[in-house]
Amino acid sequence: MNELAKQSKSASKVLRGLKNDQRKTILLKLAKNLEERTQEVITANNLDLEYAEEIQLSQALKDRLLLTQERILDMAKGVRAIAAQEEVVGQFYQEFINDDGLKIKRQRVPLGVILMIFESRPNVVIDCAALALKSSNAIILKGGKEAKHSNEILGVIIQDTLDGELPKECVQVLASDSREEVNSLLELDEYIDLVIPRGGEKLIEHVYKNAKMPVIAHFKGLCHMYIDKDADLKKALNLVLNAKTQRTGVCNAIETLLVHSDVVKEFAPTLTKELQGKNTELRADKDFIAASGQDLKLAESIDWDTEYLENILSIKTVSSLNEAIEHIDVHGSFHTECIVSEDRATQSEFLNRVDASCVAVNASTRFNDGGQLGLGAELGISTTKFHAYGPMGAEQMTTSRYVIVGDGDIRK
Amino acid sequence: MNELAKQSKSASKVLRGLKNDQRKTILLKLAKNLEERTQEVITANNLDLEYAEEIQLSQALKDRLLLTQERILDMAKGVRAIAAQEEVVGQFYQEFINDDGLKIKRQRVPLGVILMIFESRPNVVIDCAALALKSSNAIILKGGKEAKHSNEILGVIIQDTLDGELPKECVQVLASDSREEVNSLLELDEYIDLVIPRGGEKLIEHVYKNAKMPVIAHFKGLCHMYIDKDADLKKALNLVLNAKTQRTGVCNAIETLLVHSDVVKEFAPTLTKELQGKNTELRADKDFIAASGQDLKLAESIDWDTEYLENILSIKTVSSLNEAIEHIDVHGSFHTECIVSEDRATQSEFLNRVDASCVAVNASTRFNDGGQLGLGAELGISTTKFHAYGPMGAEQMTTSRYVIVGDGDIRK
Repeated sequence: MNELAKQSKSASKVLRGLKNDQRKTILLKLAKNLEERTQEVITANNLDLEYAEEIQLSQALKDRLLLTQERILDMAKGVRAIAAQEEVVGQFYQEFINDDGLKIKRQRVPLGVILMIFESRPNVVIDCAALALKSSNAIILKGGKEAKHSNEILGVIIQDTLDGELPKECVQVLASDSREEVNSLLELDEYIDLVIPRGGEKLIEHVYKNAKMPVIAHFKGLCHMYIDKDADLKKALNLVLNAKTQRTGVCNAIETLLVHSDVVKEFAPTLTKELQGKNTELRADKDFIAASGQDLKLAESIDWDTEYLENILSIKTVSSLNEAIEHIDVHGSFHTECIVSEDRATQSEFLNRVDASCVAVNASTRFNDGGQLGLGAELGISTTKFHAYGPMGAEQMTTSRYVIVGDGDIRK
Repeated sequence: MNELAKQSKSASKVLRGLKNDQRKTILLKLAKNLEERTQEVITANNLDLEYAEEIQLSQALKDRLLLTQERILDMAKGVRAIAAQEEVVGQFYQEFINDDGLKIKRQRVPLGVILMIFESRPNVVIDCAALALKSSNAIILKGGKEAKHSNEILGVIIQDTLDGELPKECVQVLASDSREEVNSLLELDEYIDLVIPRGGEKLIEHVYKNAKMPVIAHFKGLCHMYIDKDADLKKALNLVLNAKTQRTGVCNAIETLLVHSDVVKEFAPTLTKELQGKNTELRADKDFIAASGQDLKLAESIDWDTEYLENILSIKTVSSLNEAIEHIDVHGSFHTECIVSEDRATQSEFLNRVDASCVAVNASTRFNDGGQLGLGAELGISTTKFHAYGPMGAEQMTTSRYVIVGDGDIRK
């Protein structure tokens, strides 16, 4: 692992000198290679899916693992979008002359070597390799064993793309699943500048505990939607259905619905019926159950802290905006929080008081996604509250430095 | 400590709602109170200086500890500068409409609660409290025992300023020096969003190892100046003298000088004489000693890795730009690196290949400072290679979130 990380560091120095058009050429070549080799990817992915059956992986995780023709072509489309984006490194900004007449500029620069540790989702390999190339960072991609074959073939396609253009160590894919490998990488702060764990609670905790370098965690999404007393209930219904059922195994789906007591009687029956039509399991508090007119499962206190990642929704009745905000304060995960209300003052108070990487007003939580928010693709949604809070694209994989140009200037 | 951190978190929620003019009023009041109470501060500082004599603190550390009338008035000036700066939180930027017609905005938001652990320098208390107020963060300031009395009185002045305006827990100054206190704070990731250690290697390592929350390290400054074969040697002489001797106990002073072998014969004698006139101790390699015509101390390999923080300079002769860059690559600290050269291509190669938070061309390394670079004051110079790389001002104590405003928009 030491040798591998050292090679990444050397490769990152080559990447620093990369020109914009070189970056673009390589990214377009990657998209093309991916499109031409979809069949190989699907074949490898089938092996992983067979293994998933064998170990009885949950439906949500199997959905994350699956690569269809369409999903692979979407990955290629994402790479093209990244290639077409504005450059994120090299350019100068905030140029000014200080009081001593010295020319001071800020410049966006790559971080160096990024270690990404992830579970399931093989698309991460392509998305993150493309974002790393765009931002001139070397990247080490360490996937889980459940996606071993898929990650491997995607790694091969990337290597074939880099061949003759860049050192192959610019992108290193580790498809084996060895905890020891991870642990030795986490020691190598001399070569690795940042580690990004993306996955379950256990993985994140392990990385935080053992990493010697900075960590940006991509943690759980326990997202709420609050239906205010001044909500347009027709909009609210559509928003709940979309945020819960459009895709359930994702971090920006909602897990808990908060409903103001003034509207629960009117809202509960229709909502219950519609969600049942989508096979959503409901776990509600007494007030909601009474209002729904049905014999729903009673929510337990653990439900308020559970990211189901399945078609399950917990529902709580609240008597005020304040109670809704306080619930989110205690149980939220700094990911995405939504209010449905037509009242400006209420929207505003929710916006000002709720702490999350993305706050939505009358819009589905599903929009908190790099693609939707203009980043092309994303490395994930950071719930670490600094550097990158929310979706992390190529720009979020850079930092800035100062360049000072003088003519013998000394400090007085 | 649990209760204390919890109070900071509550205070941070009050700070989120602070209006621009309230922030300004409080900062101006703080500056005024500080100006009016300089004598109290000097009296307290004297007690710390007496203790410093007793425990035989080094000259560099005593210089960092000292508060004169002038330095206190400079602190107040810094607070006024921060008050006058543009606002760093609340405003929206990068507003756009996405393909679905959804209005997406980014907003700068405070981090929440910042824990700052620092040594010596009591001015940190005022600078950082002011930057925290400007950026609407609550801050816990944990100083070292060597500055106990100074930190205490500055804490009192801040508390008196907050009185009647904001909860006193917005700024908490811990003047005692208990390692246990630090350790319990480092556990409290539920309440503390970021920890910033600023001090020696041991302190930083301890924080990295024990902190459960993200860390931005303010580490050592082992800065280099490289005198190229195409340097204007008159400028070079002034720059070396300024970067080494203008103030020696600071992180942006140079520790190692690299001299191209083509100019060492011409440069060494004058430089040696001038530095000796400033009482600088020189530790040089054989080539430089031979060129200087004097019997200088021979540098040992440990010198290339030592941040003296004293009036000592190590000097190495290099045969090429490449050798200089490679030396910096191995021994540099990502802080400030400088090239003295009139050749454009050489400057450019140095800029592109050297990795540091600030790279200077023909200008003193002493300019890498928040005040000089337009930040008013600084919390320190971050050598952590992300979020804030280089001087950290109020802007660097914020992050951004997305705000999505829709009208019932769902994701397709």
